[in-house]
Amino acid sequence: MVKLSIGIDIGGTNTAIGIVNQEGKILIEDSLPTPSKKLNPNAEQQVSDELLHDFISEISRITKSLLAKINLDYEIVGIGIGAPNANYNEGTIEYAPNLPFIGKVSFCKMLADEFPDMPRIHITNDANAAALGEKIYGGARNMDNFVMFTLGTGIGSGLFYNGNIVYGIDGFAGECGHNTIVAEGRLCGCGGRGHLEAYCSAPGMKRTAFELLLRDNAEDSLLSGYSYKEMTSKHIYEAAVQGDKIALEVFEITGKYLGMALATTVHHFSPEAIFLFGGPVSAGDLIVKPIKESLEHNLLTIFQKRDIPVLISELDLGHAAILGASALVWNN
Amino acid sequence: MVKLSIGIDIGGTNTAIGIVNQEGKILIEDSLPTPSKKLNPNAEQQVSDELLHDFISEISRITKSLLAKINLDYEIVGIGIGAPNANYNEGTIEYAPNLPFIGKVSFCKMLADEFPDMPRIHITNDANAAALGEKIYGGARNMDNFVMFTLGTGIGSGLFYNGNIVYGIDGFAGECGHNTIVAEGRLCGCGGRGHLEAYCSAPGMKRTAFELLLRDNAEDSLLSGYSYKEMTSKHIYEAAVQGDKIALEVFEITGKYLGMALATTVHHFSPEAIFLFGGPVSAGDLIVKPIKESLEHNLLTIFQKRDIPVLISELDLGHAAILGASALVWNN
Repeated sequence: MVKLSIGIDIGGTNTAIGIVNQEGKILIEDSLPTPSKKLNPNAEQQVSDELLHDFISEISRITKSLLAKINLDYEIVGIGIGAPNANYNEGTIEYAPNLPFIGKVSFCKMLADEFPDMPRIHITNDANAAALGEKIYGGARNMDNFVMFTLGTGIGSGLFYNGNIVYGIDGFAGECGHNTIVAEGRLCGCGGRGHLEAYCSAPGMKRTAFELLLRDNAEDSLLSGYSYKEMTSKHIYEAAVQGDKIALEVFEITGKYLGMALATTVHHFSPEAIFLFGGPVSAGDLIVKPIKESLEHNLLTIFQKRDIPVLISELDLGHAAILGASALVWNN
Repeated sequence: MVKLSIGIDIGGTNTAIGIVNQEGKILIEDSLPTPSKKLNPNAEQQVSDELLHDFISEISRITKSLLAKINLDYEIVGIGIGAPNANYNEGTIEYAPNLPFIGKVSFCKMLADEFPDMPRIHITNDANAAALGEKIYGGARNMDNFVMFTLGTGIGSGLFYNGNIVYGIDGFAGECGHNTIVAEGRLCGCGGRGHLEAYCSAPGMKRTAFELLLRDNAEDSLLSGYSYKEMTSKHIYEAAVQGDKIALEVFEITGKYLGMALATTVHHFSPEAIFLFGGPVSAGDLIVKPIKESLEHNLLTIFQKRDIPVLISELDLGHAAILGASALVWNN
């Protein structure tokens, strides 16, 4: 009998479902659209309830149809869910800004009604899920203390301390993307100022690019032809690869700020290693080198001596979300 | 038979030794001068060894003479030591900038040679000791998740997570005074830039005071009569109590930066409460009010909902160091 886990990743646009074995192989997967904020723009309770009910029914239907297709003698050990603003302690999704549900939603409990015999159903945010994926299937298999920073549209973090994710007393701990690195700096999506995410997420990199373009009046930069709306971190990467000075400096600055933030996290936990995950990390040394330099520079001497490894996640970018969610079950 | 703990606090100038009962009462105490950096200015190994040997002999002699004076049927459960750059995991003091010892010193082991029958001897830094003191004797008695920030000449932190201090894999975790809050800001004593300690320690407050004096050309401020060398945080406090605008703003700004740093720590751990300890905290609402406002302002919404308590340490400032050190033994 093969043990299998169900991983569900609730993203802003799509929700992916996969059946995963203990080695981290996704046997089968499918997806559905995540209900959009546009479907409940005025936050009506009745609309929220209906959307949620339909969403969970559809997740259940797809999951059961995936299970029906597995030609193996298997045992499902549980369902793990990655979702924004997920509360591990309570099994809820709470006030998620990009989902159409109102307030605090008992997601695990509602899903349990669809799977009454499921041994366990857990939920956490996507960055914690990524850290768990790294622990169960990836480069952190032999570590009990590490931190994971996920870089993308936002910046998330999963803090793995003494053998488990740090959830804190309310289930929400590990939100390092919103740590202040520049007092009274850039406005962050959360409404705060000077947060890491406002500098080092993909949109943060774009903001840095425009800052440098106007600082140098760099009309000759490859980046000068994009509108503010259309420029992406991919454009910045491509320009950097071609040697564009502005684009290269964007990576330098992004790495510098990330190194500062990572030093702060090391000062808290003194982990064995740091893992980085997400699109911008695929730029490799363009970003990892300045991160390492800045981390070293910003660490207290006692931590510098140890030369803390900064590692790229071993999880496949395209499948990490399902894997991470599924890992939530193995780790319990 | 009464159980007692021995607490030893190795400070920059003096080393205090006390015998403490389980209720946190210091039955008897004494002190000796801490060997000074001046005694080994060129960091010679032989001088370091001799100073260390003499220091430990003297600690042993005083401790034994204190024990001889106790008129009780007692059992000593262990010795707890608070010291700069102490490594809990290894029982060492490592590269402490203000002590005359070279490199890594096996302090616990050397002290154990003087007390061969002692059940346990542990060492940690003073901020971790303060957090343990709060846990064992103070306001955190019923908490398993809290953080303690100690404000003084420097800024330390003790992070108490799931029932124990966070030591990290090398025993050095919890150095939040050196978290960057102002990218490329003020030079810190550690050589880094923009660290919390450079803004919110007592010398940091003085720097802020001079920044404001010159910004406003405030010759009418009560603080304008002190030289840079002579001004202390006590002068700033006294001026603030008299309504001096510059002094009041120093507290506002100090609180604002502390709130940012505390938000970062909450984002990591989501603790039950935050404790503050040290001289500047005795200014009460002058500093605590702006800290709370800034904390609230800098927290992600999901954490704001909980209204995390910011509490003043219940430990007596004059005895907290011995108490904290002694707590290290009860907690094990």
